[in-house]
Amino acid sequence: MPRHALIESRITTWAKELPASNLYAPMAYLMGLPAKRVRPLLVLLACELFGGKAEDALDEALGIELFHNFTLMHDDIMDTAPLRRGQATVHVKWNVNTAILSGDAMLVKAYQLMGRRPGVSALFSRYALEVCEGQQLDMEYEQRDAVSTEAYRTMIRLKTAALLACALRVGAAVAGAGQEDSARIGAFGEHMGLAFQLRDDLLDAFGDPAATGKQQGGDLRAGKKTFLLIRGLELSLAQGRSELKEELAKPAEQRGLPRMLQVLEELGVRTETERAAEEEEQQALQALAAVGVAEVRKEPLRALAEQLMRRSS
Amino acid sequence: MPRHALIESRITTWAKELPASNLYAPMAYLMGLPAKRVRPLLVLLACELFGGKAEDALDEALGIELFHNFTLMHDDIMDTAPLRRGQATVHVKWNVNTAILSGDAMLVKAYQLMGRRPGVSALFSRYALEVCEGQQLDMEYEQRDAVSTEAYRTMIRLKTAALLACALRVGAAVAGAGQEDSARIGAFGEHMGLAFQLRDDLLDAFGDPAATGKQQGGDLRAGKKTFLLIRGLELSLAQGRSELKEELAKPAEQRGLPRMLQVLEELGVRTETERAAEEEEQQALQALAAVGVAEVRKEPLRALAEQLMRRSS
Repeated sequence: MPRHALIESRITTWAKELPASNLYAPMAYLMGLPAKRVRPLLVLLACELFGGKAEDALDEALGIELFHNFTLMHDDIMDTAPLRRGQATVHVKWNVNTAILSGDAMLVKAYQLMGRRPGVSALFSRYALEVCEGQQLDMEYEQRDAVSTEAYRTMIRLKTAALLACALRVGAAVAGAGQEDSARIGAFGEHMGLAFQLRDDLLDAFGDPAATGKQQGGDLRAGKKTFLLIRGLELSLAQGRSELKEELAKPAEQRGLPRMLQVLEELGVRTETERAAEEEEQQALQALAAVGVAEVRKEPLRALAEQLMRRSS
Repeated sequence: MPRHALIESRITTWAKELPASNLYAPMAYLMGLPAKRVRPLLVLLACELFGGKAEDALDEALGIELFHNFTLMHDDIMDTAPLRRGQATVHVKWNVNTAILSGDAMLVKAYQLMGRRPGVSALFSRYALEVCEGQQLDMEYEQRDAVSTEAYRTMIRLKTAALLACALRVGAAVAGAGQEDSARIGAFGEHMGLAFQLRDDLLDAFGDPAATGKQQGGDLRAGKKTFLLIRGLELSLAQGRSELKEELAKPAEQRGLPRMLQVLEELGVRTETERAAEEEEQQALQALAAVGVAEVRKEPLRALAEQLMRRSS
């Protein structure tokens, strides 16, 4: 069975076995929304990379996807987000208390799958804390006037990249990989995660709305502290330019996107962000190259990385 | 070192090692409030019961107390409670988002301690889900007109008694107890938890405010669905009495506590609840008696149970 089908089938079976109750229904709802399943796929691919079978790591793949969806359920409460994957968020469809409690139980369900091997459990806990730390920084940065690009990278490394590293290292652990290879495949995931987020920031600003399916510049208009905006504000300050601050001082619906985009181009922020993404991609591929298994085994992971990095949506 | 000192010292050391951040500060705050530490004590006592040393189970004792405090942090959000142990709750002292996220990270921290032995991890996850299921039922019952005493018992068994059973079985697992003894010590905890909650309901209504430190009848006035009120409403319906419904129809501050208490006495609810508590206590002690170790080893657990059951505050 292809890996994606393995994952979807495992999720479907899992959802069917849940007791009927308002504690479990929101989990099944969120897990049932169409998604790319990147993290469980990374678990399976890393397990295979080190000589395991995809089937051996299916529990852990499901565990990682449950954890990811638990973070989405709680983050959506914190962000008061109305939509997730185009559908009502859990706290809107049910209520905030149900979303808090169902998320808690979802984290426990994740541990039921990640807790079978003490090594996997310890790895998972370490990265799960990093994800929480990243979310904490994200909330704090949204309240702050100035955030450095370095602080932004730290936040993204924790909030987004850490879980990709975790997925890969968990898959590696299931297959019995050594510590050095585990660290290398973790570095591959971390750099890939940073590159992915930088590409995401670029797509928001300069992507084709027809391809992304999102309003162009949604993050910029909202004043969300992405790499582009943070770096744009840094360079504006150094060069005495005030356009971005002027636009951000307006109510969100009156901000001029074309003017903001032009400033980012003129300051060289677009080019710089593209270079930063390429740099992360190179480091990701170097980490993968250093993994001590035959090159041919690395092809699926390399292909996935290139697909994620070249995406236009 | 006495067991209580061992527990407090382990908590203090743990809190000192936390990174300085708004993610971890709320955990240290809540764990630092004076508390009875019943659950970690049960972990240590069960470990000793089966021939282990208290020190061997200190990590798990801390893990159980972390889990308990995580549930308090999130329950207080759901109940919009302003105070916990006489101090501001985390969502009041910080904010709701911080209380959600810090609670999440606290559950991960609990698993870092509970995940070292796969057997302990699996036991813990099973009971952690029961606690979530109990909280879900509690929230649903508060919205419902009629709840049966049977449904109330199920809710209390899950929300409160399960974690006492969990603490004891985790301590037993650390000491390597067999499956039958593990089940017996779990039953001891579960019955003790039910007895404890029934005594708590009695103390709220009929206890001496000078001893409990709480306003007499706080739960009754608030219309909280305790065993007393649920059984009182059941018997009122069967006997065609309307006093309780009349009082509950009034705004909380206008409800007549003396009249409510008199009805509960006349319906025999007080006596019935006392008998139900005694029944649970007997079953708890029988389960302890069946545990296959020398009687003298059971003394500390028996003494703790009797102390919890005879308490007036």
